[in-house]
Amino acid sequence: MRATVYHGTRDVRVEDVPDATLREPTDALVRVTHACICGSDLWPYRGELLIYGENGRMGHEFMGVVEAVGAEVRTLRPGDRVIAPFAYSDGDCEFCAAGLHTSCVRGGYWGTADDGGQGEAVRSPLADGTLVKLPGDVDLSDARLGAALATLTDVMGTGHHAAVTAGVGPGDTVVVVGDGAVGLCAVLAASRLGAERIIVMGRHDARLEVARRFGATDEVRERGEEGIARVRELTGGGTPYALECVGTAQSNETAIAACRPGGTVGHVGVPAEPVNLLDVHMRNITLRGGVAPVRAYIPELLGDVLADRLDPSPVLDLTVPLEGVPEGYAAMDERRAIKALVAVS
Amino acid sequence: MRATVYHGTRDVRVEDVPDATLREPTDALVRVTHACICGSDLWPYRGELLIYGENGRMGHEFMGVVEAVGAEVRTLRPGDRVIAPFAYSDGDCEFCAAGLHTSCVRGGYWGTADDGGQGEAVRSPLADGTLVKLPGDVDLSDARLGAALATLTDVMGTGHHAAVTAGVGPGDTVVVVGDGAVGLCAVLAASRLGAERIIVMGRHDARLEVARRFGATDEVRERGEEGIARVRELTGGGTPYALECVGTAQSNETAIAACRPGGTVGHVGVPAEPVNLLDVHMRNITLRGGVAPVRAYIPELLGDVLADRLDPSPVLDLTVPLEGVPEGYAAMDERRAIKALVAVS
Repeated sequence: MRATVYHGTRDVRVEDVPDATLREPTDALVRVTHACICGSDLWPYRGELLIYGENGRMGHEFMGVVEAVGAEVRTLRPGDRVIAPFAYSDGDCEFCAAGLHTSCVRGGYWGTADDGGQGEAVRSPLADGTLVKLPGDVDLSDARLGAALATLTDVMGTGHHAAVTAGVGPGDTVVVVGDGAVGLCAVLAASRLGAERIIVMGRHDARLEVARRFGATDEVRERGEEGIARVRELTGGGTPYALECVGTAQSNETAIAACRPGGTVGHVGVPAEPVNLLDVHMRNITLRGGVAPVRAYIPELLGDVLADRLDPSPVLDLTVPLEGVPEGYAAMDERRAIKALVAVS
Repeated sequence: MRATVYHGTRDVRVEDVPDATLREPTDALVRVTHACICGSDLWPYRGELLIYGENGRMGHEFMGVVEAVGAEVRTLRPGDRVIAPFAYSDGDCEFCAAGLHTSCVRGGYWGTADDGGQGEAVRSPLADGTLVKLPGDVDLSDARLGAALATLTDVMGTGHHAAVTAGVGPGDTVVVVGDGAVGLCAVLAASRLGAERIIVMGRHDARLEVARRFGATDEVRERGEEGIARVRELTGGGTPYALECVGTAQSNETAIAACRPGGTVGHVGVPAEPVNLLDVHMRNITLRGGVAPVRAYIPELLGDVLADRLDPSPVLDLTVPLEGVPEGYAAMDERRAIKALVAVS
């Protein structure tokens, strides 16, 4: 089969690889229909994080059709359409029961030595716990709907996790740090949870335009001290809730500084650098969040997408075929695209 | 009057300074009876944090007798015995109302250019909001009781803040990182809040002995990776609650690593170094806490001390007269004492 393989910095290729097959009785074999390229895929692409060896398999955001199931799979059968969260999980350990599926004791992440999502098919371990079945009548010939559903594999659930862990609710004022795909989904999530004022910090016209469509009421284009001063001016001293959607030391320190004393940062950007916590300490800012247990969120968000109450599809502003994955990476790397959808089949 | 003055690294002197006087109508003049030396006083003492200029006035933990009050002071009068929290606050701003008195919009900290607590008297701004009156019948000739009350100015309230912000409750398992005075008070606070298993991480025999008296059930003497492995072994994979009472990068990273996924660190150590948050992210650890709003906690803790249900006095294992303050600093710096009480008058 064809799949995306890592060869080094800015060297990602679609190549022939061994066919995905069932291995464990709890596996399902999923024929991929939609995949996405994640902002976090850009780190190995840029050589900033060496998570893949030579020939590492890439992609952790995909949905598709079940092609075969192992003997112990109870809830799925061939032909079922499924969404895969970006980590697999058994669904019944202590942490899954607590809604923290990314800490599943038997779970793990797609790719590296196993099948990645940016390919024709994926062996899914722990299929019953991991894959979420779509209703049979979902019309995936609708490209917008397909894109909206594909965001539930990661980016929309991740933005939602930022808002949920921060504690955003009706009437609240929220600052979102970052206008990448995750930041935009955090804006949308905050809006969905009823936030009244949503201030997005970013500087890219096209992305801020999406932020406004998603419910942002204000934008702050300045960074660092200037950006913090502007947020404090807009909020009368700081926001109760900041959503950190980048992961640098500066974005974390900005989210912290944007809070008023006693505020909460919901952070989902992978922290690439150590963070100075003196301001956290002096003003009792709470830091919550982390890698999003999107499996926990898919049912709720899926219901809203299917009911046409939620549409994160505008973050996917480029669609490429599987053979176009390298161009998808390049477009995101060069900021020509917010996020790329891979129309696999 | 006599007071403690900073002159440079390991050069702290008790000298003649201008008498404390009333300045604002909301001031009280407090004759100090008891003061303490704080672990955080050791940073400027060691030259690690330059918060004092030449002639900076030292000390932020004190209690005493009101000698005079300004025209607008309503709740205090000369002769009242009072405990001062380590920060002053108006008691009625947005943040004081939320119990976050250390973020009071008109508040501040003792010392530097104003009177410090390690002296004969202190001008207290915002006296009504700041000072907590003791019942008239408290017998301060009881040295143990005086020491127990003196801990409410900072160290006991700070340990309590770690436990409260972590969310410790009845039956819980808690790991306390640090066996200094704050760590010991965190053990006592966790015990008071009903924690069933309290694992203290430290390596000093005398301090661990106090920890056991305060309710610690287990001790881990190893540090770093070994200490983390030991905690995970004792707790079956990590604790739901860790109390960080040191402030170094290592102690923060140890507290984080000691948590099981989804756990909470209540941190009160002033973060002296940037902290790697990758583990926080990957396992969704919550960081709460910061500088303790001890003013909010004094009434509750005071009630327990006066009812003989709470006795943090063992953390004060050295008593010096005011002229002995330099020896108190040296003893703490050289770890000959956990914490020094200054018997001023």
